[in-house]
Amino acid sequence: MTNRKLRMGMVGGGIGAFIGGVHRIAATIDGEIELVCGAFSSNPEKSKKSGEALYLPADRVYGTYQEMIERERQLPEGERMDFVSIVTPNHVHYGPAKAALEAGFHVVCDKPLCFNMEEALDLQRLVKETGLTFALTHNYTGYPMVKQARDMVKNGEIGKVRKIIVEYPQGWLAQRLEVGNNKQAAWRTDPKQSGIAGGMGDIGTHAENLAEFITGLKIVEMCADLHIFVEGRPLDDDGSVLLRYENGARGVLFASQIAAGEENALRIRVYGEKGGLEWFQMEPNTLIAKWLDKPTQLYRTNLGYTTAAAKAAARIPAGHPEGYLEAFANIYRNFAATVRARMNGQEPTEHNLDFPTVDDGVRGMQFIETVVYAGSSHEKWVKFGETGA
Amino acid sequence: MTNRKLRMGMVGGGIGAFIGGVHRIAATIDGEIELVCGAFSSNPEKSKKSGEALYLPADRVYGTYQEMIERERQLPEGERMDFVSIVTPNHVHYGPAKAALEAGFHVVCDKPLCFNMEEALDLQRLVKETGLTFALTHNYTGYPMVKQARDMVKNGEIGKVRKIIVEYPQGWLAQRLEVGNNKQAAWRTDPKQSGIAGGMGDIGTHAENLAEFITGLKIVEMCADLHIFVEGRPLDDDGSVLLRYENGARGVLFASQIAAGEENALRIRVYGEKGGLEWFQMEPNTLIAKWLDKPTQLYRTNLGYTTAAAKAAARIPAGHPEGYLEAFANIYRNFAATVRARMNGQEPTEHNLDFPTVDDGVRGMQFIETVVYAGSSHEKWVKFGETGA
Amino acid sequence: MTNRKLRMGMVGGGIGAFIGGVHRIAATIDGEIELVCGAFSSNPEKSKKSGEALYLPADRVYGTYQEMIERERQLPEGERMDFVSIVTPNHVHYGPAKAALEAGFHVVCDKPLCFNMEEALDLQRLVKETGLTFALTHNYTGYPMVKQARDMVKNGEIGKVRKIIVEYPQGWLAQRLEVGNNKQAAWRTDPKQSGIAGGMGDIGTHAENLAEFITGLKIVEMCADLHIFVEGRPLDDDGSVLLRYENGARGVLFASQIAAGEENALRIRVYGEKGGLEWFQMEPNTLIAKWLDKPTQLYRTNLGYTTAAAKAAARIPAGHPEGYLEAFANIYRNFAATVRARMNGQEPTEHNLDFPTVDDGVRGMQFIETVVYAGSSHEKWVKFGETGA
Amino acid sequence: MTNRKLRMGMVGGGIGAFIGGVHRIAATIDGEIELVCGAFSSNPEKSKKSGEALYLPADRVYGTYQEMIERERQLPEGERMDFVSIVTPNHVHYGPAKAALEAGFHVVCDKPLCFNMEEALDLQRLVKETGLTFALTHNYTGYPMVKQARDMVKNGEIGKVRKIIVEYPQGWLAQRLEVGNNKQAAWRTDPKQSGIAGGMGDIGTHAENLAEFITGLKIVEMCADLHIFVEGRPLDDDGSVLLRYENGARGVLFASQIAAGEENALRIRVYGEKGGLEWFQMEPNTLIAKWLDKPTQLYRTNLGYTTAAAKAAARIPAGHPEGYLEAFANIYRNFAATVRARMNGQEPTEHNLDFPTVDDGVRGMQFIETVVYAGSSHEKWVKFGETGA
Repeated sequence: MTNRKLRMGMVGGGIGAFIGGVHRIAATIDGEIELVCGAFSSNPEKSKKSGEALYLPADRVYGTYQEMIERERQLPEGERMDFVSIVTPNHVHYGPAKAALEAGFHVVCDKPLCFNMEEALDLQRLVKETGLTFALTHNYTGYPMVKQARDMVKNGEIGKVRKIIVEYPQGWLAQRLEVGNNKQAAWRTDPKQSGIAGGMGDIGTHAENLAEFITGLKIVEMCADLHIFVEGRPLDDDGSVLLRYENGARGVLFASQIAAGEENALRIRVYGEKGGLEWFQMEPNTLIAKWLDKPTQLYRTNLGYTTAAAKAAARIPAGHPEGYLEAFANIYRNFAATVRARMNGQEPTEHNLDFPTVDDGVRGMQFIETVVYAGSSHEKWVKFGETGA
Repeated sequence: MTNRKLRMGMVGGGIGAFIGGVHRIAATIDGEIELVCGAFSSNPEKSKKSGEALYLPADRVYGTYQEMIERERQLPEGERMDFVSIVTPNHVHYGPAKAALEAGFHVVCDKPLCFNMEEALDLQRLVKETGLTFALTHNYTGYPMVKQARDMVKNGEIGKVRKIIVEYPQGWLAQRLEVGNNKQAAWRTDPKQSGIAGGMGDIGTHAENLAEFITGLKIVEMCADLHIFVEGRPLDDDGSVLLRYENGARGVLFASQIAAGEENALRIRVYGEKGGLEWFQMEPNTLIAKWLDKPTQLYRTNLGYTTAAAKAAARIPAGHPEGYLEAFANIYRNFAATVRARMNGQEPTEHNLDFPTVDDGVRGMQFIETVVYAGSSHEKWVKFGETGA
Repeated sequence: MTNRKLRMGMVGGGIGAFIGGVHRIAATIDGEIELVCGAFSSNPEKSKKSGEALYLPADRVYGTYQEMIERERQLPEGERMDFVSIVTPNHVHYGPAKAALEAGFHVVCDKPLCFNMEEALDLQRLVKETGLTFALTHNYTGYPMVKQARDMVKNGEIGKVRKIIVEYPQGWLAQRLEVGNNKQAAWRTDPKQSGIAGGMGDIGTHAENLAEFITGLKIVEMCADLHIFVEGRPLDDDGSVLLRYENGARGVLFASQIAAGEENALRIRVYGEKGGLEWFQMEPNTLIAKWLDKPTQLYRTNLGYTTAAAKAAARIPAGHPEGYLEAFANIYRNFAATVRARMNGQEPTEHNLDFPTVDDGVRGMQFIETVVYAGSSHEKWVKFGETGA
Repeated sequence: MTNRKLRMGMVGGGIGAFIGGVHRIAATIDGEIELVCGAFSSNPEKSKKSGEALYLPADRVYGTYQEMIERERQLPEGERMDFVSIVTPNHVHYGPAKAALEAGFHVVCDKPLCFNMEEALDLQRLVKETGLTFALTHNYTGYPMVKQARDMVKNGEIGKVRKIIVEYPQGWLAQRLEVGNNKQAAWRTDPKQSGIAGGMGDIGTHAENLAEFITGLKIVEMCADLHIFVEGRPLDDDGSVLLRYENGARGVLFASQIAAGEENALRIRVYGEKGGLEWFQMEPNTLIAKWLDKPTQLYRTNLGYTTAAAKAAARIPAGHPEGYLEAFANIYRNFAATVRARMNGQEPTEHNLDFPTVDDGVRGMQFIETVVYAGSSHEKWVKFGETGA
């Protein structure tokens, strides 16, 4: 590979979408990636207009992802895209991901990975077989203080983990927005586009992923109470789950879209034998560490005492708040460094590889299937992976 | 009754106890009550020394509560105590409460009410039969901003309640302090003194009571995961509970004594159809109100816009923080006003009656019995009041 | 002295007053002091009614402080008051304080000490001559975390102090409440009752005192801008002051009664060569310590790592918030312990003596006179104690 | 102008610089601007390496800004840069800015504008004469909640402004880092590169600018105490200033680089007759509004009730924190929209024009010169613009 930016093609993310713009900023913010083409909408006219608004040449704006992948693969190496970024609703993850991998393109895919376990396992297999690089944008794990938390747990600073509280309350679906013209609400509450879970898939998976990321512990069984509060909505908009982790730790996870007045109040608390950690997404540059016998500490992004991985996830001197977009960008930055290393025949470093992969995606799909089953089950405890099927 | 302070006799609360001193301050802070006698310890020598340290005359310091009640009842009305305050460990609540009621004394009793449901129902019956006044010190409901929250829910400001999150994490029992000479740890982890529950009885009941107080809703069923993390401890030191309330609201309650680094982090969040409320015991003078479509508000103790009951629970101008002792004192103040009114043949006002009673105590005992059963049950949902017996 | 409570007589603090009730709670909360008599108002009828509401015998309720002092001194030792608590507006501090000292009674006096420097120096002389104990209720220095801050500075933890920011914004006088029937507003904005300063005397002195208490440093010169924002008000309701301390440290002090929306937002920040401390009166149980090279720490009331003086100023286990009344009570508690020790012919301990005295009062009066002069002066820097006279 | 990104050439910002990377992210984050060329260092070799790291073609990487401007102006319109971004230390602002304007290029320049008033006025004249667009990166005014605050003041929500407190404490220069190899510390404390002011120029100007931006009020006179705490440092590292504004409002401004333990704690409080506003840079997505008679409100980035300008400054749904880089990018985004509009012969909208200009820069230089003079003056009050010369 010559000295150039990585080239990204995008599936989805046309005008009016939310997460597409986030991905574009996250991908390009560090100057390592450029957007070169896209199939921005299943509506070709809208895709074209989106491409124009993004200053793309007309011949690199495609009507479908199939067309994009087919045409791009025929371009010379010095010109064609290097990877595909998939930012569509859940039911359109598997198709483009599979097509991209089969055509030899690396992939960045929004979460949850896909629509069901069958698709998930197929993608996992494809990634393994092709050796291509696959990133899943569980973006909250990109925050510097989340890395710090993970490292502190790993280093034994809080001792053996005993209790985990992870929560993601939102209030934006407290009313039935999906019957208006709120596109985000519409697809996220539609089983045909979202899958078998509503809130649990959309934000519960973030909570599950964040807890496993920080603690390094896996859920082994759970007990769930899922509910639909807004009449007429077909998918869960609230759920609470009791968790048991592999080391004997206990957990509570709750995710709600009807917690009126909440924005994106993702918060995690982890208590070990010697101390506890607390991190809150809406004030993400502070990690609170509590101790049995000394004053509570506030760890802050990019100060000298933070861990190497935490520092690597920061961009600017401490006290200049880094936000959601920068955390999201950390996934792209590490993904790009990994792709670049492999293109150059080098081993990616540990820092390069610090991003969620297809394996996190498989685990997330298992969480969704398990929690939906547990929610409807009369059994108290359901094993992780059990689906009643 | 002539114009004088109410006279309190105390059971328990000798030198070195924690809650006894709290009760004495709470009782006397407003100048409405004076401590006139006590049986401060089952150890007569210790009782005597405690009485001296409290500047009581020697002849009003008793060796046992039985002696105190017997002797005080024989004193003339102008001299004898008016009520008994019981601040002993749980297993010594029922005895003195029953004796006091039977002897015609009003009672203030620390929570939980007693040792088991049988005792609880007996006390409830006695209170009813005697017509005496009985206050249970679920002190957290004494905070001005908790009154404000209750009133706002009652007034429909947040709409129909959908979700309740109530939690009480502490860290002080993260290690096995009870094998040292920590008296507080010793009795609270001892089934003979504490009852069938550890943390769930000690602090879980506070959480349960606070949620029912604020929302006016009753739990109808629950699913619990109780655990003992510290080896050798016979009672639960951590527990998480899924709740279902009578109106269909869902809840999560967790209480932990092994949440390392936490002090008394009792927090409640209540979400309704129109907004949400959040209150945190460690910053008790702020009530956070969140709304679907307008800025979050911070309600503050004793500002002009607060409700009458919230104002009645405050003592000093806004911005001078009122704390735990003042909240606790609000129970005594209202109890005293009720007793005084009744002594004078008047009806207590609604504000006078704003304190927890024996009925809250019965409900708390039911909670303890249900949650312990639910924790050990293989059934997912256990009805409130069900004990497997 | 026999084993009994100390006896307090009160001057001022009749029904409807604010600070009188605070003093009564603060004095009696620990069971070391009892109110035995009072001259609660210059209006004898009101004094009498106040005494009744406080359950005092009619013959211990006096029409004037002169009468109270005269009559009490004639009572036998076992019966008469031990000390006088003065809770009147500023212009009625000197008279009762002088009379009490001359009659051999110890004194607790609200701040500011008196009306002018002449009175202040006379009281200082009297205290010295009589050897009696005199406490001035600069109550904010009673908070446990303020003690902690002082001790940490004294122990050199933050290094040589360089910069001090102390502020006391209030908003309650943003409008001209004094023309209504707000008694508090009326006397505090009246030069005849308040003295030559408005806000600077009422709350500016608290800020000055707090900064000197924590840092142990004295102001040597200042530059002030005082202003009256509310038309028709004769005294300053806002002021900002640049300070220079004896060790070369620089400071900023501002106090405002027109900071709309603020309650009692007294806050101090002290920066030394190695770290900084921050304390906020409205969340008084946390002391923030910031460091050059390690995480910010939160020191919390009554945790094991706090200093002896901080622990001595706390009453209940950490996490149960202690508030304004308890901080205020710490002055009374230490005053009482000092009086008691001296009555018993013992030396008070260092902890006993940890309360503000007449010397703090003299210094506060000097601050008032200096800052008022500096505010009107055309000179940039005015020496502490300089008054243009 | 055809449908394409705007083309940016950069002066300064080579490898190892801090603010250069910030500008590159801020410029390109929205996909409206691309970096096409640069003179990244006065060291040609370093400039070349920086260009390579940025994936620029070698022939667009220049050894000097003079060369860049000369060569770029000769390129065809479809290829040459559209504007110059100047990110060098203060003493190298004027030269490239002047050259760029004279060559017909628009300019974005870091603050402070330049080295002295003479340069400042010359640039102001040049901008006026050329009609080119000039943005000064007073980046803190780019935060959504700062826009909200400005709009609320402008709309009269807090009434006539009375008091302004603006502060910028940092601790990074508490020690003499400039003698080590800290490049940032070195130039900022060197009068030859930084100018006549240290902290007051570097961060004091941000405070001054923020206060004037939000309130729309101009300082008319000031009284300053500047100090150098770190021995051997030639420029102020701490300063406190009393301010008087044109409408009679009073202010306090302090800026410190020796406030040990502080990061970038820029905070502003503005009190009007009806309410107060508070904003803190380290939690930038919340604007606190306090009121005389109703609960404090928390305004949050990108919620429905925010003003149009505040919404325009946000990128992602509420609750996903936006940070320093996004605020910085808002200046570039509005600058770009203005340039684009003018290129297309259209009038920029009010939102397009919502960025700081050369006029803010002139005012900032005046602030620096006045405050340095005031700091050394024996006069108490110094008029804004007075320099003793």
